[in-house]
Amino acid sequence: MGIKLYGVGQSIYTRKVLACLYEKEVEFEFVDVDVFKSKEHKNEFFLARNPFGQVPVMEIDGDITLFESRAMTQFLAHNFMDQGTQFIFPHDKKKMAEMAPWIEVESTKFSPIAAKLGFECLFKSMYGLGSEIDEAVVSQLEEELCKLLDVYEVRLSKCKYLSGDDFGLADLHHMPEFENIMKIGSKKIVEARPNVSKWVATILARPSWAKVLAMQN
Amino acid sequence: MGIKLYGVGQSIYTRKVLACLYEKEVEFEFVDVDVFKSKEHKNEFFLARNPFGQVPVMEIDGDITLFESRAMTQFLAHNFMDQGTQFIFPHDKKKMAEMAPWIEVESTKFSPIAAKLGFECLFKSMYGLGSEIDEAVVSQLEEELCKLLDVYEVRLSKCKYLSGDDFGLADLHHMPEFENIMKIGSKKIVEARPNVSKWVATILARPSWAKVLAMQN
Ligand SMILES: N[C@@H](CCC(=O)N[C@@H](CS)C(=O)NCC(=O)O)C(=O)O
Ligand SMILES: N[C@@H](CCC(=O)N[C@@H](CS)C(=O)NCC(=O)O)C(=O)O
Repeated sequence: MGIKLYGVGQSIYTRKVLACLYEKEVEFEFVDVDVFKSKEHKNEFFLARNPFGQVPVMEIDGDITLFESRAMTQFLAHNFMDQGTQFIFPHDKKKMAEMAPWIEVESTKFSPIAAKLGFECLFKSMYGLGSEIDEAVVSQLEEELCKLLDVYEVRLSKCKYLSGDDFGLADLHHMPEFENIMKIGSKKIVEARPNVSKWVATILARPSWAKVLAMQN
Repeated sequence: MGIKLYGVGQSIYTRKVLACLYEKEVEFEFVDVDVFKSKEHKNEFFLARNPFGQVPVMEIDGDITLFESRAMTQFLAHNFMDQGTQFIFPHDKKKMAEMAPWIEVESTKFSPIAAKLGFECLFKSMYGLGSEIDEAVVSQLEEELCKLLDVYEVRLSKCKYLSGDDFGLADLHHMPEFENIMKIGSKKIVEARPNVSKWVATILARPSWAKVLAMQN
């Protein structure tokens, strides 16, 4: 399969897919989308592939198009089942049932908080979208993150990964947001929780993640 | 497989799973969780099954436990593949790729807006959590819903369902929120969009949905 990923190297959603491509050892071509100057993600070519005009977008053999980062990682997990890190265990119902809820927790509970925190503390000034960090927003988000990571702390006292004994898609999806959180004041929330802290260090130490970061340079 | 669903009949998340069980023609036992008086979803039994203390929760053969509604519908779709409505097409990569993004659109874009709208206009007063509808909140949410349904309108001008030619999980996941939206002022947003309007009527007319509603009586 010929895979083409249209994205932005610093986008947390693009990075989920990049990390997955490296974990699955899938060859791909990366196409940098200029979302700042020429707003390529809102042009006709791009909107035909993603009606929401967002990165990333994936093309497979010029024939299949996907948008939404987590739809892409699931697609890769299923279609390159026996290559690279294994994420799908079709004959192990119990293992699948243990992993699946945490994929939803990331997309509906964790990422909405963590993405806003990253925007407020990192990207807003980086991209000239505002110079002042809104402290009220940050403390509200941090409060929500604390509650969520309290649940993670208990889960991670029982198994090495959110997904269970093995690294899974749910863990992978958390990497980009935690990369950013560990660069801002909110990292104290991670550091205050030993199991979360160890887990974050473990997932960010994966070779796939080093490759994602190396793409930026 | 012996399936037990712990939930609340009016919960939009419980209803996603109920609709899926009926579509898949899977036998199940429903256990009503008292979230109001005795707050059963926060007791030890329940927290051992879902650390977030939320309904629904599913048990399979007393051995496998699942939380997060969309993890349950995916589990049912995969494990009862050849029974009832078919949601998984393991040999049709293209069809799977066409459906998958819309599952993410529902959980990350649609439901966060629609659930808050339902809470503000329907459940807040119903459950005595506040008597006044906050009009500023409603108009902000309605504005977001308009933008989203504009994209749906175009998609649904090209195919009958968000999932493509056939009814899929992405469509099913929208049923509970649209049931509520059609009961409040925001239904005008649906009615102003002919393709969305037709699609909402089509999915809410499914026998599975009538069975979900019948459980309330
Ligand atoms: N849920 C989407 C989110 C994608 C997204 O929000 N991408 C951002 C860049 S990080 C974007 O393209 N924003 C431009 C816009 O929303 O107009 C996914 O997982 O792919
Ligand atoms: N993402 C979860 C959401 C579940 C949820 O929010 N359930 C509500 C009832 S509709 C609940 O139990 N709320 C109580 C709480 O959050 O403490 C799912 O899809 O199952």
